[in-house]
Amino acid sequence: MSLSSAIIPGFSFASISAGIKKSGAEDLALVFSEKIAVTAGVFTTNKIKAAPVKIAIKRIASQKGQAIIINSGNANACTGKKGYNDASEMTLRTAKALGIPSELVYASSTGVIGRPLPIDKIKKALPELVKKLSPSSLEQIASAIMTTDTFAKISTKKISIKGKTGTIAGIAKGAGMICPNMATMLCFIFTDIAIKPQALNSALREAVTNSFNRITVDNDMSTNDMALIMANGSLNNTPLTKGTPVYRKFTDALKDITYDLARMIVEDGEGATKFIEIIVKGARKEADALKVAASVANSMLVKTAIYGKDPNWGRIIAAVGYSGIDINEENIDIYLNNIKLVTKGVGAKKEEIARDMLLNKHITITINLNSGKKSAKVLTCDLTEKYIEINAHYTT
Amino acid sequence: MSLSSAIIPGFSFASISAGIKKSGAEDLALVFSEKIAVTAGVFTTNKIKAAPVKIAIKRIASQKGQAIIINSGNANACTGKKGYNDASEMTLRTAKALGIPSELVYASSTGVIGRPLPIDKIKKALPELVKKLSPSSLEQIASAIMTTDTFAKISTKKISIKGKTGTIAGIAKGAGMICPNMATMLCFIFTDIAIKPQALNSALREAVTNSFNRITVDNDMSTNDMALIMANGSLNNTPLTKGTPVYRKFTDALKDITYDLARMIVEDGEGATKFIEIIVKGARKEADALKVAASVANSMLVKTAIYGKDPNWGRIIAAVGYSGIDINEENIDIYLNNIKLVTKGVGAKKEEIARDMLLNKHITITINLNSGKKSAKVLTCDLTEKYIEINAHYTT
Repeated sequence: MSLSSAIIPGFSFASISAGIKKSGAEDLALVFSEKIAVTAGVFTTNKIKAAPVKIAIKRIASQKGQAIIINSGNANACTGKKGYNDASEMTLRTAKALGIPSELVYASSTGVIGRPLPIDKIKKALPELVKKLSPSSLEQIASAIMTTDTFAKISTKKISIKGKTGTIAGIAKGAGMICPNMATMLCFIFTDIAIKPQALNSALREAVTNSFNRITVDNDMSTNDMALIMANGSLNNTPLTKGTPVYRKFTDALKDITYDLARMIVEDGEGATKFIEIIVKGARKEADALKVAASVANSMLVKTAIYGKDPNWGRIIAAVGYSGIDINEENIDIYLNNIKLVTKGVGAKKEEIARDMLLNKHITITINLNSGKKSAKVLTCDLTEKYIEINAHYTT
Repeated sequence: MSLSSAIIPGFSFASISAGIKKSGAEDLALVFSEKIAVTAGVFTTNKIKAAPVKIAIKRIASQKGQAIIINSGNANACTGKKGYNDASEMTLRTAKALGIPSELVYASSTGVIGRPLPIDKIKKALPELVKKLSPSSLEQIASAIMTTDTFAKISTKKISIKGKTGTIAGIAKGAGMICPNMATMLCFIFTDIAIKPQALNSALREAVTNSFNRITVDNDMSTNDMALIMANGSLNNTPLTKGTPVYRKFTDALKDITYDLARMIVEDGEGATKFIEIIVKGARKEADALKVAASVANSMLVKTAIYGKDPNWGRIIAAVGYSGIDINEENIDIYLNNIKLVTKGVGAKKEEIARDMLLNKHITITINLNSGKKSAKVLTCDLTEKYIEINAHYTT
């Protein structure tokens, strides 16, 4: 990605090492919009929510925002009243340093749960962080929000609106505690395109439904997930409203970005060697297709089989069977990429050719239930010794 | 266990290597009751059921049985009409060799899904298998039904009924594709105690609910699970009926046996180094307590943390939060063995002492929701590189 493509007029970014991560890597990031931005968000559906998430849920009601302060290395979750006060203080200090009201500042945290937030380190780093604000630092903050991620995740898109070119750019972090039916992991999206608050909100929800809510690494739902989008209107276009062609264009671009980021999160799944698309077709209802796809995507036995380059479709069909929907075994076809492994519930003896196919990094499993016309897709990755290694030795 | 303790009057057992397992280990087992036995069973709730399970579900309606023929090394699941005919043939040939009606024979299979059953090998081995029948071979058949299990699982109990001593003995196999809310994995229980069919059926269901349906290794539900109990009445007692004190005594003994076997299955969970009891207390409903316990027991992040001897209670509370029940974070206490790690949703800074505790093989995690009086327990194990290794390289 070229540097210029990640500039969004009216936004500036900064990151710094505040000493929260033991490694000394950058762990504090700031986003600032020169104008107050229309802001929308979706948040974890985990009943246990981190302090900054609780604050953000309150503030998002105003549909406005001007800054986001993000730390990695500490989740500030399950930290009680002190944690809540720390998150509040984090937004207050940021607001002061920027000269804006604290209600326009969102805090976001990611890292270990249950440890007190080192708020003093954050306070100390803030003046220098604000000084570093620059329109060209999006890539740096994408790195600063990483925990076990191995690469920074950025996606940008430009769309033309009545002769003007608007930019939408998003960043995200994974790479564990990733599960569908959540709001999302951390994701921040910025655009200079003017859009009405309600329109922005529904565009974000539509985009998240088919991207972040359709991925799974380990079926563990985080306490800190948050996706925020800020539209600061620097493009000076007539604000987009729902139901118009240009709103559709905007939403489609946003969907491309969130899908891109979701894909990158799965590709960077902890310890993953394979990227797996699970496509379920021929279901009576979309919800049924999604249940089957999620059941297969979360099966540890399917994930280890793919890792072992073993076309063990028995594990796939077993996961279809326990997905909870009504299944007619005799109708089920299963494909590995374009190889039909299973015909009408019975093996087609294509294991040898399928085994070769499993040498690829990108694998598609298509399950046709042949019972209706609805479909769904879930993205997942394989399960390897490396996942165990990362997660058996993460906090210490 | 002494040899004599595993003799159940009127039952005989045999096992043999029929050449189904590549290793040459024993893979075919036979159980024979000299009298027709009152028989009850529970079966996998997976919508995809193996052929022998389909046949057993039909035959169990008679509440009678006299023999069970069991093979390991091949699941005979997703094998279409041929698979069904093979399972049927397996019971027919066994019946002929024993000189009993085939309706009294149950077949059971465990192993790889989707491969044709080598029925010819089974047919060939049958005469020799029948010849080997002996009252003292229960231990041998417990070994012959193993797949990835590392030890044979047997539990016996004696109870006295009006001066006579009755025996109940059960065997089971694990050790992967283990998940609660299923019927169970393979389990066969034998008793010489006479009991009415309906009473036997409800005793078995009560026992399974609190044992096999409360364990999880990998959240993957098998296509082949089956628990059968045969009561042949050789003790010549008055058949037990529901609601009597002696029925309660029988059911309690049966519960002890199934709990014992369930515990052994988890202890032998694929690659496991830790045996983990998850106890949830203070829930409004038992179903809520069970949801929370299952959510924590299935969390890959909790399981890897325990493996890494890391008292990462943040992962535990996150799994409580996404269990789907209403949670009040401020009420939650979490204990590791007797160490209170979390008080009212906030860490109690007991990580160092907890870390020492995690050196033990047997770990108890107690979660008090402090919202009601109901509780539930789920047994699980840790998740290790060895699980990945076993399951990435199992079929080939």
